[in-house]
Amino acid sequence: MTEPLVYLNGRMLPASRAHLKIYDAGVVLGATVTEQVRTFDKRLYKFAEHQDRLWHSLRSAQIHIGLTREELSALSEKLVEHNARLIDRSAELGLIQFATPGEVGAFAGVPGSEMRTGPTVCIHTFPLPFERWARQIQAGAHLITPSIRHVPPQCYDPTMKYRSRLHFYLADKEAQEIDTDAVALLLDLHGNVTETATANFLIVEGGTIVSPSPANILPGISRATVIELARKLGIPFAERDLRVADATSAVEAFTTSTPYCLMPVTKINGVPIGNGKPGPIYGRLLEAWSQEVGVNIAEQIVEGAKQRSLGA
Amino acid sequence: MTEPLVYLNGRMLPASRAHLKIYDAGVVLGATVTEQVRTFDKRLYKFAEHQDRLWHSLRSAQIHIGLTREELSALSEKLVEHNARLIDRSAELGLIQFATPGEVGAFAGVPGSEMRTGPTVCIHTFPLPFERWARQIQAGAHLITPSIRHVPPQCYDPTMKYRSRLHFYLADKEAQEIDTDAVALLLDLHGNVTETATANFLIVEGGTIVSPSPANILPGISRATVIELARKLGIPFAERDLRVADATSAVEAFTTSTPYCLMPVTKINGVPIGNGKPGPIYGRLLEAWSQEVGVNIAEQIVEGAKQRSLGA
Amino acid sequence: MTEPLVYLNGRMLPASRAHLKIYDAGVVLGATVTEQVRTFDKRLYKFAEHQDRLWHSLRSAQIHIGLTREELSALSEKLVEHNARLIDRSAELGLIQFATPGEVGAFAGVPGSEMRTGPTVCIHTFPLPFERWARQIQAGAHLITPSIRHVPPQCYDPTMKYRSRLHFYLADKEAQEIDTDAVALLLDLHGNVTETATANFLIVEGGTIVSPSPANILPGISRATVIELARKLGIPFAERDLRVADATSAVEAFTTSTPYCLMPVTKINGVPIGNGKPGPIYGRLLEAWSQEVGVNIAEQIVEGAKQRSLGA
Amino acid sequence: MTEPLVYLNGRMLPASRAHLKIYDAGVVLGATVTEQVRTFDKRLYKFAEHQDRLWHSLRSAQIHIGLTREELSALSEKLVEHNARLIDRSAELGLIQFATPGEVGAFAGVPGSEMRTGPTVCIHTFPLPFERWARQIQAGAHLITPSIRHVPPQCYDPTMKYRSRLHFYLADKEAQEIDTDAVALLLDLHGNVTETATANFLIVEGGTIVSPSPANILPGISRATVIELARKLGIPFAERDLRVADATSAVEAFTTSTPYCLMPVTKINGVPIGNGKPGPIYGRLLEAWSQEVGVNIAEQIVEGAKQRSLGA
Amino acid sequence: MTEPLVYLNGRMLPASRAHLKIYDAGVVLGATVTEQVRTFDKRLYKFAEHQDRLWHSLRSAQIHIGLTREELSALSEKLVEHNARLIDRSAELGLIQFATPGEVGAFAGVPGSEMRTGPTVCIHTFPLPFERWARQIQAGAHLITPSIRHVPPQCYDPTMKYRSRLHFYLADKEAQEIDTDAVALLLDLHGNVTETATANFLIVEGGTIVSPSPANILPGISRATVIELARKLGIPFAERDLRVADATSAVEAFTTSTPYCLMPVTKINGVPIGNGKPGPIYGRLLEAWSQEVGVNIAEQIVEGAKQRSLGA
Amino acid sequence: MTEPLVYLNGRMLPASRAHLKIYDAGVVLGATVTEQVRTFDKRLYKFAEHQDRLWHSLRSAQIHIGLTREELSALSEKLVEHNARLIDRSAELGLIQFATPGEVGAFAGVPGSEMRTGPTVCIHTFPLPFERWARQIQAGAHLITPSIRHVPPQCYDPTMKYRSRLHFYLADKEAQEIDTDAVALLLDLHGNVTETATANFLIVEGGTIVSPSPANILPGISRATVIELARKLGIPFAERDLRVADATSAVEAFTTSTPYCLMPVTKINGVPIGNGKPGPIYGRLLEAWSQEVGVNIAEQIVEGAKQRSLGA
Repeated sequence: MTEPLVYLNGRMLPASRAHLKIYDAGVVLGATVTEQVRTFDKRLYKFAEHQDRLWHSLRSAQIHIGLTREELSALSEKLVEHNARLIDRSAELGLIQFATPGEVGAFAGVPGSEMRTGPTVCIHTFPLPFERWARQIQAGAHLITPSIRHVPPQCYDPTMKYRSRLHFYLADKEAQEIDTDAVALLLDLHGNVTETATANFLIVEGGTIVSPSPANILPGISRATVIELARKLGIPFAERDLRVADATSAVEAFTTSTPYCLMPVTKINGVPIGNGKPGPIYGRLLEAWSQEVGVNIAEQIVEGAKQRSLGA
Repeated sequence: MTEPLVYLNGRMLPASRAHLKIYDAGVVLGATVTEQVRTFDKRLYKFAEHQDRLWHSLRSAQIHIGLTREELSALSEKLVEHNARLIDRSAELGLIQFATPGEVGAFAGVPGSEMRTGPTVCIHTFPLPFERWARQIQAGAHLITPSIRHVPPQCYDPTMKYRSRLHFYLADKEAQEIDTDAVALLLDLHGNVTETATANFLIVEGGTIVSPSPANILPGISRATVIELARKLGIPFAERDLRVADATSAVEAFTTSTPYCLMPVTKINGVPIGNGKPGPIYGRLLEAWSQEVGVNIAEQIVEGAKQRSLGA
Repeated sequence: MTEPLVYLNGRMLPASRAHLKIYDAGVVLGATVTEQVRTFDKRLYKFAEHQDRLWHSLRSAQIHIGLTREELSALSEKLVEHNARLIDRSAELGLIQFATPGEVGAFAGVPGSEMRTGPTVCIHTFPLPFERWARQIQAGAHLITPSIRHVPPQCYDPTMKYRSRLHFYLADKEAQEIDTDAVALLLDLHGNVTETATANFLIVEGGTIVSPSPANILPGISRATVIELARKLGIPFAERDLRVADATSAVEAFTTSTPYCLMPVTKINGVPIGNGKPGPIYGRLLEAWSQEVGVNIAEQIVEGAKQRSLGA
Repeated sequence: MTEPLVYLNGRMLPASRAHLKIYDAGVVLGATVTEQVRTFDKRLYKFAEHQDRLWHSLRSAQIHIGLTREELSALSEKLVEHNARLIDRSAELGLIQFATPGEVGAFAGVPGSEMRTGPTVCIHTFPLPFERWARQIQAGAHLITPSIRHVPPQCYDPTMKYRSRLHFYLADKEAQEIDTDAVALLLDLHGNVTETATANFLIVEGGTIVSPSPANILPGISRATVIELARKLGIPFAERDLRVADATSAVEAFTTSTPYCLMPVTKINGVPIGNGKPGPIYGRLLEAWSQEVGVNIAEQIVEGAKQRSLGA
Repeated sequence: MTEPLVYLNGRMLPASRAHLKIYDAGVVLGATVTEQVRTFDKRLYKFAEHQDRLWHSLRSAQIHIGLTREELSALSEKLVEHNARLIDRSAELGLIQFATPGEVGAFAGVPGSEMRTGPTVCIHTFPLPFERWARQIQAGAHLITPSIRHVPPQCYDPTMKYRSRLHFYLADKEAQEIDTDAVALLLDLHGNVTETATANFLIVEGGTIVSPSPANILPGISRATVIELARKLGIPFAERDLRVADATSAVEAFTTSTPYCLMPVTKINGVPIGNGKPGPIYGRLLEAWSQEVGVNIAEQIVEGAKQRSLGA
Repeated sequence: MTEPLVYLNGRMLPASRAHLKIYDAGVVLGATVTEQVRTFDKRLYKFAEHQDRLWHSLRSAQIHIGLTREELSALSEKLVEHNARLIDRSAELGLIQFATPGEVGAFAGVPGSEMRTGPTVCIHTFPLPFERWARQIQAGAHLITPSIRHVPPQCYDPTMKYRSRLHFYLADKEAQEIDTDAVALLLDLHGNVTETATANFLIVEGGTIVSPSPANILPGISRATVIELARKLGIPFAERDLRVADATSAVEAFTTSTPYCLMPVTKINGVPIGNGKPGPIYGRLLEAWSQEVGVNIAEQIVEGAKQRSLGA
């Protein structure tokens, strides 16, 4: 049997049987915190860092999942071990962990549907969808700043990775309405650049990698990796408020995110970045990252995409 | 058989079998719009108004559900008709309609779990939980203004009823940490009073019912009913920015929401409102409302709560 | 001879000899206030209202032009009378009046280029470029909300019609980068809709014409005409803060501006407005306006555009 | 012949014949970017740095001037060489470069006035008006914070040197209404000190030179020179948000700008700065600067002013 | 004996013996609420309205003075009756009531200085200082908008009349530094006009009296009188956000305050208002007010000032 | 005789005779600047630093006290020397210096109460009220973020220590309404943590002491001591904008203030900080501080409190 397992509320289930009640607070309120990890060579990458942030998110959202950190980690690794066997050699896994406060009492408890008390805890995996990134990791992604602004820190603690993200969905819709190849680069209420729905954003300006100020972005673990790699390569790194004009007049731009690591950005609001092609600092960072993980990251995406399309 | 039905993606199912995939955008992004209606005497109240708003929300979120308004309404009414037969004479139903963009492609499509394309559409009911309001509809509710601020209109269109509501959940947590009887009265970024997680907020000041400015609140259908009743009773109504000091120095305050209609508020941030008891304008409004619907609203809640506790 | 006249600093000149020194404050600082009027049947329309605003702008910018209102008006009318004889029967004139504080002392006064003291005052005309509006007045215009925000009232008094408008130029560039048919609909710093570079913006919502709050828009004279026509036609009119979501979910939208009067808007940020075609309230307003001025406004634009393209 | 040359749109013209059409976007919209350089001993100072910024401005404003950087620089230097011969030995030149998108189609093209396509590019010089600074470079300048606030970065990229500057003109008017010796020190929307219409602003506080945060000021080349000189002299330099109270309680204050380098500020909002006289750090910086350029900067201004008044 | 009485903490004292401990919260924290009333013909004017506001302020500041409203009013009237006998026939009294939470425990209670518990309550009078207004009620007052902004409603409830007013003191200092005849007209954080340290501000625009929006101003009782008089005289009245440009381009401006009623404003930021003299609507309002109180208000000030200067 | 002396306006008085006129600007406007110093072993601690700040405050408030710094310091030390003799061996003194602009002319000068011109200057002492801190220095303090926000720097220069502090009084009231053990931790208008009414606030995060950004807090002298001690102990220190979520998820938190030095915070908005007990970095800092001053600070408070309760 080739069906992957999912951990849900104390049980390991086949994926086809993993589902949430429609009364779950994750469904009713979007009250979910989450974490995403990926494998390199089928082993979880920077798992400890991701677990640090997950436990920070759980504490911020005051969701007490009834598992220790060690238990949750062990379950996650067991899941990856099992599910990795079901995928191609060229494939890698994404691991998702999420938790909600559980079922909403007011709706639940209807006859025939016993209410479960306690939080909802779920761990599942998915093969990284390389085909979604294969073209752009070579040609570069397009970003558009939509009219919808990022939710400010007065409303949501941006260091918590949460799932009340309808505004991300709508911002991407707005961007794609304009350019089907684009995703949204959200601005904060003051007009400063923040992040995309799934990635941190960085530019290169006069030889320095510059990040938006950390006040309104997720403290990404891939972003931390970029900072670390830049330090090793002797490339200066700085943080400051970035306006749209800073982004469009940058020499290079890229996004960084757990599943694909580092993606060049070659167009922002229709303006080509640099010479419109992935730049040299992007190249150096990706090469150093590839060396660190022992995998040619871009090649794996391009080749993996081909395999997956063959498999489809 | 006493199990209520749920409509989910084209099928009428027993409640115990209605669930969402963990890959649904409603779970993954909180990307859900919704509507809530209640019955009086088992018939949906102001259903047309609620459907107007639902279709506005669907359009705002750009979710195309593949049903006409007439079809969705007919399904909803059929569901109510069926499920109402399963509850006590003293009970009433809440009706929930919600929709999401459907499954998130990147996660879905794992072996054994075929991906469904198209949006998720769900309709379900629940007996109104009268026991949750019985004490407060007589003694008054407590509100606390938490440090978490309401999401501003630059991020979310407040006229859309959506479910990315983790901040509501956390705001209520913060309020309850301080007073277990309290719920959160959220302020906007400018310090103006907005609404609670589930209700609009109104005060009485010098004989006039005053509402927060409509710029950052849900245009509630119960709120519209209050305005209409006030007009009939000759009670002036006004809208303006309300500060916390306006709320705490009000003569009366109340919240208004679909399931319980009108709830007196007798304490805000620890300060008693008026003489600390439900006030006369509250009383006149509730009486007029009760007459309109032919049901003594407060009595139904109090009595219904007793029935439900006996049944439990 | 077919060359139109231009009034410049006390002289009537042929257009080809009307130019500003490169030291003029209008060139050096964009320190210019201006007014634009159009003719119907070669006669200036609502000229008094435009002169009221021009004198308000001059006072706000503290430019003392050394002419009385009567003198400036007489010069303007004389110019129109003269220049109107040079254009086709189907054509109409736009009249521009502008003034600057005059030459900037620090730069001027170089040998060979005597410095002129006192303000610069210029009046000129141009045939209305009907060909620019012919297609859109039938099919509707497209608007896009750019990332560049409108300058707030703390910096510029929005009731003054001035020419420090690089941000308008750049905002239109940003919009056209995305959709070559589009112009920019600028948002204010709070994310509220304001105006386009050349026109006021209005929507229809539930049968009411709604305008952005007047705090950050030019008090347009065409806008005032729309309000007046709406009153005569019994169409309600309201002002309030408008968010992008209000605009994209409007039933109708249009822009109003001196040279073309009223233009339907059929797409905003890629979202079709109403059914994607000019709506009935637009039609009623334009018809009433046409009756008032005794000219079929849309037809004149369409026919005039044809004439001009033949003439070119 | 003693008339200086001006470069305009491909031609070298005598200054008296250099002028813009009234249809130019620089006149119609203030859509102009610009740069200002000065000579020391008739040679352009920090010309490369100024050209870096000019090309940044051109790119930000998306004006493509049809000249290479080398061509523009050569033309500028040629102009300076020629025009420098026409001025006194004690005089120095200011060089202005500016560009606009060219003529505005809607207005242009009237008979007799052929429309020119393509951008407008102009280079001209002027003898530095030493008499404007002679008194203040000795006694100190006065600054007043006007009610008009600086345009925020959400509207205009402050790293671009542009000419939509009516608010600067009006702010100076407001300041001079109060004190004829004063110029405006603009605050941003948050009440922080930014810059004057023509210069960056700096204070001395506890031995450290402090600059307003760079978020809303022009990155001045003279400001960069001050930073460099301070480093050489071992004077600490810092950037942070500066409030009016920080400015009025500073030990020293000065402005820095290309044409006059460094000007002491001895009064802000009527409050004497330090002991009301130019301070020691001002003195050390000016001396170091004078040494660097081989010219006693203050003396040149004072003496040059005398010569110019004799010549007038 | 000619010394007036002061009520202080339960006792009627000669003025020379009325003083606060240095440990009083009014001294230590500026934690004081207050009210000011004046007499016409030695009788308190609109005393009931002032008492309404005082009790609102006491409740907002949560100071429980241990007196009923009737007791406090009776004490105040008794004081006025007594003290009025000590002043000239041409004079009038100002009445001050203030209360603080009482002595601050941490500082108080040192040996020899027994700590008093309970709030501090004081009532005192003073002859209206007509000489302060005599010139300006005829020639008009000057206002200047200082850089210090008014404290926003998120910090202080503006409907409470309180004495933490150092910013008013400093704003007036800043204004007087610039023009010794001027007082400060404070702007709010958004650049809108609010009020002066002692008065509400109003303008006339196109025949309508316009007030700043009530969100950040004291709801003045004299302001309410102006609104009432305007209604009787058929002069329209409106409230909206007022920018500095609205104020400087107004046809008339005036301030209104309890002790002097209505003062014309003839200069704002150095710009003459209207023709630089008190205007006709000012005149009509003051006349109507004089009739209502049976006293020629301006004449009383001018004549009273003369008497007082003779008496000095 | 055991009564302490107070310096007031040029005279040394017994405490029981030190009082302010009710017409003093400190009473009428809260227009007071102040400083607070404490003794260790009856000697003033960091007196020079406190005097630096006092003179900065005096200059900012433009109060010219007519004493030199040396004179004021000598008077203060003389007072401490005298008053210290009157207290227990286990006790310490707090020293308060304050100044106001003096009597308000409009109210003063009534018969029998000669008006004094010139500023009010007062110096007094009080035994440190150890009993107020004894419990919390062991068990930790509770903080609550009230709805009242801190006054922004656009209104008050936060580097000036002033007494217009009604908002602090009301914020503490609001906190105590909710938890009688709590004091208010004020947020600024942007939702960032600032300070309490009497102390700076600090957290520990990942081994680093983190302070709110200095833009809206008093530059506390105890805070500077913490920074200095941290440097000596090798504990990193950083400043940045702190949100409520940063505070509640901190490992440790404490407040620092002149009279008690360093107080652990164990609960914020009901959420326990760390393990709910004073943390190790708190302990190390307090120990180092105790060593520096040669006094076990916590023990002195606990023991002193006992003595004072015996004495009472």
